[in-house]
Amino acid sequence: MQFKILKTNSKARVGEIHTEHGIIQTPAFVPVGTRASVRGLSAEDLKEIGVEILFGNTYHLHLKPGEDIIKELGGLAQFMNWNGPTITDSGGFQVFSLGQAKMKGEDGEEDTLVKITEDSVKFRSHIDGSLHEFTPEISIQIQKKLGADLIVAFDECAPHPSTEEYTRGAMVRTHNWLLRCIEEFKNPETTFFKQYFYGVIQGGVYESLRKESAQFIAAQDTDGIAIGGVSVGESKKEMRQVLEWVHPHLPDDKPRHLLGIGEVDDIFDAVEMGMDTFDCVIPTRFGRYGIVFVSPSIGNVKNKFRMDLNRTVFASDNQPLDPNCTCLTCKNYTRAYIHHLFKVEELLAYRLASYHNVHFLVHLTKKIRQSLLDGNFAEFKKQWMS
Amino acid sequence: MQFKILKTNSKARVGEIHTEHGIIQTPAFVPVGTRASVRGLSAEDLKEIGVEILFGNTYHLHLKPGEDIIKELGGLAQFMNWNGPTITDSGGFQVFSLGQAKMKGEDGEEDTLVKITEDSVKFRSHIDGSLHEFTPEISIQIQKKLGADLIVAFDECAPHPSTEEYTRGAMVRTHNWLLRCIEEFKNPETTFFKQYFYGVIQGGVYESLRKESAQFIAAQDTDGIAIGGVSVGESKKEMRQVLEWVHPHLPDDKPRHLLGIGEVDDIFDAVEMGMDTFDCVIPTRFGRYGIVFVSPSIGNVKNKFRMDLNRTVFASDNQPLDPNCTCLTCKNYTRAYIHHLFKVEELLAYRLASYHNVHFLVHLTKKIRQSLLDGNFAEFKKQWMS
Repeated sequence: MQFKILKTNSKARVGEIHTEHGIIQTPAFVPVGTRASVRGLSAEDLKEIGVEILFGNTYHLHLKPGEDIIKELGGLAQFMNWNGPTITDSGGFQVFSLGQAKMKGEDGEEDTLVKITEDSVKFRSHIDGSLHEFTPEISIQIQKKLGADLIVAFDECAPHPSTEEYTRGAMVRTHNWLLRCIEEFKNPETTFFKQYFYGVIQGGVYESLRKESAQFIAAQDTDGIAIGGVSVGESKKEMRQVLEWVHPHLPDDKPRHLLGIGEVDDIFDAVEMGMDTFDCVIPTRFGRYGIVFVSPSIGNVKNKFRMDLNRTVFASDNQPLDPNCTCLTCKNYTRAYIHHLFKVEELLAYRLASYHNVHFLVHLTKKIRQSLLDGNFAEFKKQWMS
Repeated sequence: MQFKILKTNSKARVGEIHTEHGIIQTPAFVPVGTRASVRGLSAEDLKEIGVEILFGNTYHLHLKPGEDIIKELGGLAQFMNWNGPTITDSGGFQVFSLGQAKMKGEDGEEDTLVKITEDSVKFRSHIDGSLHEFTPEISIQIQKKLGADLIVAFDECAPHPSTEEYTRGAMVRTHNWLLRCIEEFKNPETTFFKQYFYGVIQGGVYESLRKESAQFIAAQDTDGIAIGGVSVGESKKEMRQVLEWVHPHLPDDKPRHLLGIGEVDDIFDAVEMGMDTFDCVIPTRFGRYGIVFVSPSIGNVKNKFRMDLNRTVFASDNQPLDPNCTCLTCKNYTRAYIHHLFKVEELLAYRLASYHNVHFLVHLTKKIRQSLLDGNFAEFKKQWMS
């Protein structure tokens, strides 16, 4: 795998990840297209925004449309006409998080949807209750058919809160599974596309576990390193803490992906702590609720850079969502119009707000990258975070 | 009003309607943006498609966001960043059609939502049950604030089926109301934008009423003539029959709008019977259900030029929706991908299918126009309808 570091600034780094579908300039924010679609946005929108890499969810894509159809149609990037770099997760996070729900089994007993053993995870589809099983090998086989450029080891992300004992068990499973994933990744019989492989550091909120996990993952033959389980915590401080624990153990020459992050402050922290890519559903999820990101001076740490467009005060406001923004939504549409679209639940509402939010986080990250290249990251961060 | 006829072919005509927001080349299909949005499509999409005029619904826009906000923000075309020609209806059709529903009144009695007198129509909002009243004057005042280029007289569209007696009453009210609408249209105190005014021919499925209505409307001082109540009938034959009855009474020099039409065969018929513009919600409504239009040879009279994308046969079909189509959806996306988006109910499904369907009917109408200019309309129609 070609991963170039162009510049560093303390722990932060500016780099490039070269994939078969193009180059990702890091740090990069990765929008999430759970079911092969970033909700409300087309592939053309994403290109126009300047997105460099998309995230897909193995659990969802396995259930629908199924990895065989996506493979047949040329892989995830081709299937959705994105044609650029993509990354898939292992399916683990969804299996465990959706598995918290209870459902009636065939025997009439109510039970959780998920059964974990050392060998595999059995779970029920949240769509139709059908029984499925993921092993490390199956997760990798599915991801090899989905054909994303970057794929991720099958891991167990322990729920928050979990005891140290349970979290250790999940971490050990994650480590044992990693070795099986690496074997399967190297299996030429299940290889269809050129892909790169990331291991996942787990260990919850426990310092000794996080250090142990970081050391274990760093020692294996992987192309990149992902850090999981930081988005399930309750406070922002925990994410930063985890990154401080694991950072000393990360090899410099492998790209690092932070799973499930972030908002504005998270992105500053993640970059500062040496992360190269990070994915999050927030821009499109907030977009569907009418919550839009705004930059300083409207946006600030106190309001979390968010503005609730549903408020009546916007009903006749002819300003753009964010006066500093250059996105298509802000160039063309008023707050009043988009407020109206939300009030009457028009599809265009979700699209325009999601477009703006994805543009906002992608371009914030691009500006952070530029500030690192220009040597004024600290000033840029101060403009936003003070 | 500047309405130019460039060419005629029997009853059919090729023309141009000049408005303050641009020229409409007729015949033209008019997509409907009920609540100031053509569902799922942006103003940029509509321009890219080649749409020349949009239709807005006075009833819906009056309820939300209200005509005062739209006036304050520059009128309907500016409000939605369309900036091109627009037409609004009178609100009559929605008042009467939504008024068929029953709702509990303040006295606890269940009643229909609508009360018609010679002077006005009282109705309840389908959103919150609040009481409203439209008179001819109020409908015109609202439309003058909405600021569409073309506005339409307040009419009563009798439901189908209605007796001849009831239909005559509704027609006479429509005629009486027209005179009041014309007065209000000319009132300088309620004028904010340069607009043109259409009267509406009613009369249901009754030949003598349709002729009487056509003669009455044609004799008044209006810029254009609309024909209402043809989309409420049960058969295609009725629409064509109504147009045959009214056609001899229509002045040649006024543009004619056919309300609520149409599908492929309707469009051929409407143009052939001398209609200049016609609006319909079908392309976006079908688009949301996964029904897409297809051209010959896939599309034909028997399958009504429709294809149901929900069918399993499309799950791995890598063709475009319509292989003859040049729209953005067909250039970029496969049936398999859009089928998947419908199965998982992704927002992008509705957008891509609606984009194609609007493009399809707009460009069918443009091709019909070109065939009239080239003198080969009959052949073109035969290619499609045989």
